[in-house]
Amino acid sequence: MELTHLQEKRIRCEAILPYILKDLLYLDFKEGEKTSSLADSEELSSLFPQTFSRPILKCISRKTDQNQGALRVGVVFSGGQASGGHNVIAALFDAMKQIGSESSLFGFLNGPKGIVENQYMEITEEIIDPYRFQGGFDLMGSGRTKIETEEQLQKSLTTCEKLSLDGLVIIGGDDSNTNAAVLAEFFLKNDCETCVIGIPKTIDGDLKNEHIEVSFGFDTACKVYSEMISNISRDALSAKKYTHFIKLMGRSASHIALECALKTHPNAVLISEEILEKKMTLSQITKQLADLISMRASMDKNYSVILIPEGLIEFIPEMKDLISELNHLIAQDSVNKEMESLDLDEKIDFLNQKVKSDLKSAFQLLPKAIMEQLLLERDPHGNVQVSKIDTEILLLKMVEEELKERKKEGSFKGKFSAVRHSFGYEGRCSMPSSFDAHYCYSLGYLAAFLIKRKMTGYIACVYNLKDIVQNWKAKAIPITMLMNLETREAKKKPVIKKALVDLKGNAFSHLQKMRVTWAKEDAYRFEGPMQFFGPSEITDTIPISLLLE
Amino acid sequence: MELTHLQEKRIRCEAILPYILKDLLYLDFKEGEKTSSLADSEELSSLFPQTFSRPILKCISRKTDQNQGALRVGVVFSGGQASGGHNVIAALFDAMKQIGSESSLFGFLNGPKGIVENQYMEITEEIIDPYRFQGGFDLMGSGRTKIETEEQLQKSLTTCEKLSLDGLVIIGGDDSNTNAAVLAEFFLKNDCETCVIGIPKTIDGDLKNEHIEVSFGFDTACKVYSEMISNISRDALSAKKYTHFIKLMGRSASHIALECALKTHPNAVLISEEILEKKMTLSQITKQLADLISMRASMDKNYSVILIPEGLIEFIPEMKDLISELNHLIAQDSVNKEMESLDLDEKIDFLNQKVKSDLKSAFQLLPKAIMEQLLLERDPHGNVQVSKIDTEILLLKMVEEELKERKKEGSFKGKFSAVRHSFGYEGRCSMPSSFDAHYCYSLGYLAAFLIKRKMTGYIACVYNLKDIVQNWKAKAIPITMLMNLETREAKKKPVIKKALVDLKGNAFSHLQKMRVTWAKEDAYRFEGPMQFFGPSEITDTIPISLLLE
Repeated sequence: MELTHLQEKRIRCEAILPYILKDLLYLDFKEGEKTSSLADSEELSSLFPQTFSRPILKCISRKTDQNQGALRVGVVFSGGQASGGHNVIAALFDAMKQIGSESSLFGFLNGPKGIVENQYMEITEEIIDPYRFQGGFDLMGSGRTKIETEEQLQKSLTTCEKLSLDGLVIIGGDDSNTNAAVLAEFFLKNDCETCVIGIPKTIDGDLKNEHIEVSFGFDTACKVYSEMISNISRDALSAKKYTHFIKLMGRSASHIALECALKTHPNAVLISEEILEKKMTLSQITKQLADLISMRASMDKNYSVILIPEGLIEFIPEMKDLISELNHLIAQDSVNKEMESLDLDEKIDFLNQKVKSDLKSAFQLLPKAIMEQLLLERDPHGNVQVSKIDTEILLLKMVEEELKERKKEGSFKGKFSAVRHSFGYEGRCSMPSSFDAHYCYSLGYLAAFLIKRKMTGYIACVYNLKDIVQNWKAKAIPITMLMNLETREAKKKPVIKKALVDLKGNAFSHLQKMRVTWAKEDAYRFEGPMQFFGPSEITDTIPISLLLE
Repeated sequence: MELTHLQEKRIRCEAILPYILKDLLYLDFKEGEKTSSLADSEELSSLFPQTFSRPILKCISRKTDQNQGALRVGVVFSGGQASGGHNVIAALFDAMKQIGSESSLFGFLNGPKGIVENQYMEITEEIIDPYRFQGGFDLMGSGRTKIETEEQLQKSLTTCEKLSLDGLVIIGGDDSNTNAAVLAEFFLKNDCETCVIGIPKTIDGDLKNEHIEVSFGFDTACKVYSEMISNISRDALSAKKYTHFIKLMGRSASHIALECALKTHPNAVLISEEILEKKMTLSQITKQLADLISMRASMDKNYSVILIPEGLIEFIPEMKDLISELNHLIAQDSVNKEMESLDLDEKIDFLNQKVKSDLKSAFQLLPKAIMEQLLLERDPHGNVQVSKIDTEILLLKMVEEELKERKKEGSFKGKFSAVRHSFGYEGRCSMPSSFDAHYCYSLGYLAAFLIKRKMTGYIACVYNLKDIVQNWKAKAIPITMLMNLETREAKKKPVIKKALVDLKGNAFSHLQKMRVTWAKEDAYRFEGPMQFFGPSEITDTIPISLLLE
């Protein structure tokens, strides 16, 4: 693979470490109080008898150094890509060499199934070096297998014992870290000495709480999307004739949409959590956007930039109900059979008759292209795949219809020409921002130390991130303390609660305060491409939503 | 408008000038031979009696300085946005102050209609400064009005005379520069002293020839698209499960697709010019892509990255014929009337009967979603708008069908999961690359000098661009020498010939040589975000296709 000059320069960058993590041989822990869980502590303590209620561990420095000793560690990427992952591995490698020069690091291939199937590569200096400060998870691939069944758990244990692993580092989001806790518990119960440590990864930003300030990958993804949004805003402002509907990846929560809005000052941004709280209907959202466009048209501004979070639809109560009604209907054999021979129009008519009367109006509102997606894009269980619905097209078409009506009535006199965009994969594998690169390096370093000290079922936590890197602090928190029970597929399961946008938080409040201005004025803020060299105010920025909190 | 730190730093950047342009008071011209046109010289010389056949002017330095003298100049953005436009204006401003401290610069608002309607702003130092090194055309907006009718020409002349302009600088692509030539001729014929100078702008890269090495904006757009393509490639390589179909803006020619391929090494890139030369059918293209995916699947690589130029469809002979047949059919009142009451399926059936027999198979191949676009997206003349057809969806769906067939037959055993992307507006208004920023600054500087020397109907030309900026050279070429006659809307019109990708050129040859490797191996090259600071091998790159030529 040919390296670009930029890649070469980045590879040779020196990772900065917080003072506290610089020399792991002089690092120690201070134990905090015993912990509980977010909720359901009784059930959770019985599900995790070995690992529940452990204390938070705060990193402190010690005067005398500790023994060196080689470590054997396995590491795996789990779930969707996020920028900085390779730096976690590089840091693990470097830290393990500091702890014991004979240490060995193994990378499991293509996600957790690599653990189950004992597929791995040994990671040497020659192998890791070209991946330093680089995006992607391609060093060893990633995957979405969950280690859940007794057989999978047992096979994973066998793998760890075969390799005599002191530790297993799972780089993942909420589900993967839940999996890390399950593995830690299983290993302890079965006298396997491999410690399991989680690393908080996800571009979506929904793995955060009072301890985890942000997950890695979020900063980079938002910077990449904001670069594109800024470019589009500047185009809108120059051409003065397009309304841009921009959908942003981020699963359920609207953290990415919020952060990108704070960075780029669009004319409107929808925040799913707010829409849910206000119990808005699709028709109300449509009217609100049409009002914005009309208002701007009256100021002779026939252009706008509108940000839309990927998960929107599930937060619109009537749409959520409609989708579960459709799932319910289509799950019925009789309905399914009757629909088989129908073409799209007939299917729509047929379902229109079947849908509950209070959902009929929502159903009839939907543009045909979206109906088609609702009826065709189904997962193996027959459920509508909400993430496959082109929400930006849905809104674009509904706003278009609304404005046509208003034009007929004479209440809209402007021009409306819309362009859709959808950003997702573009932001997951970018070269990491300086923030993510250093954050990941610290997380990997900390993980190595946690394994050296035989901690298991913990998630590595680097915090105080608003300060300069040197002043960042480190701790470890038991994964179980982030959990509660949720019903999934009719079963109660331990899960790490996804963080949604806090409507009382400073970041959202700031948006609320500013958005009236952003709607009217062209206050677009132009992010430009991420910079890796030059003055620190350009290279070392952190998420605005983190800064405001 | 809030400036980001990056904007502030860029605003304060020093523009580098070629040695030859540093002091306009010591600059001179050497006249070359008289010129002709690309073709149709007789007709063109009668259309442009005043300006035809003028010599190329090569910039040289002179020993003694020339007189200073204030200039009054108007400038206009014409057509689609391209990065660097604001630096043309900044350079014009700076150069005019060097030529005469009392000089005045006027920006016409929202494109050429600002000239016709005498809508302008005076550009002062305070106004231009925040736009230095910034993307977009938002300082004064752009537009697509063509100054063609006698009335428009006369009004433009009146504006220039009212403002007592020494010069009018038109920043535009092929059509806008044709317009510049028409204006120059008209002004001379009517004793108006305003000189008209063109600046070669377009991200599409199709305004180039033996004199113009590249148009401005092309470099930046390709860098922005390549950043995104690289991110997607790295995601493909990490997730190992998606085939990405990426459509790239660029109108008819495939320069952008070619340049982005040379930068990012995708598994496949379609070059429209090659498809035309080989007279490929849609079905052949589909099979070729399906073969690629099958071949990679047999290597256990169920992922690919495929680049598609925006203008593809018009270069597939059968599609071109089909579209003109549909245009012809629908233009008939009887057909139109019969279709009015039909729904989409019925329309398709109806047209299927009407279409010429040799085009039926092409018509029947098209997925319904594309049929819908062909039948619905029509311009005011009733013609299909080819640019609105989602070519990446067309190919995605056709390849999907083809692979389904092969799966049934047993000849395809891999997995196929496709994601579409379309990049366009993202790349037109980015902060300009260092190359575009300096190139534009040189072009603006040169334009001011051309006006000082009362040259008209010329296009500013900065060349030797492979060398460091200081060694770039400058000249001016008569716009008429780039022209031939083309039939547009049944009339012969003077136009600047659009440059298509040269299938015998070094850039395409290099692609041909490499693409077999890129198809099989994951030779993806990761561009990363554009860098403005740091070592010159990172910041000062020029288009690879330019480097190879």
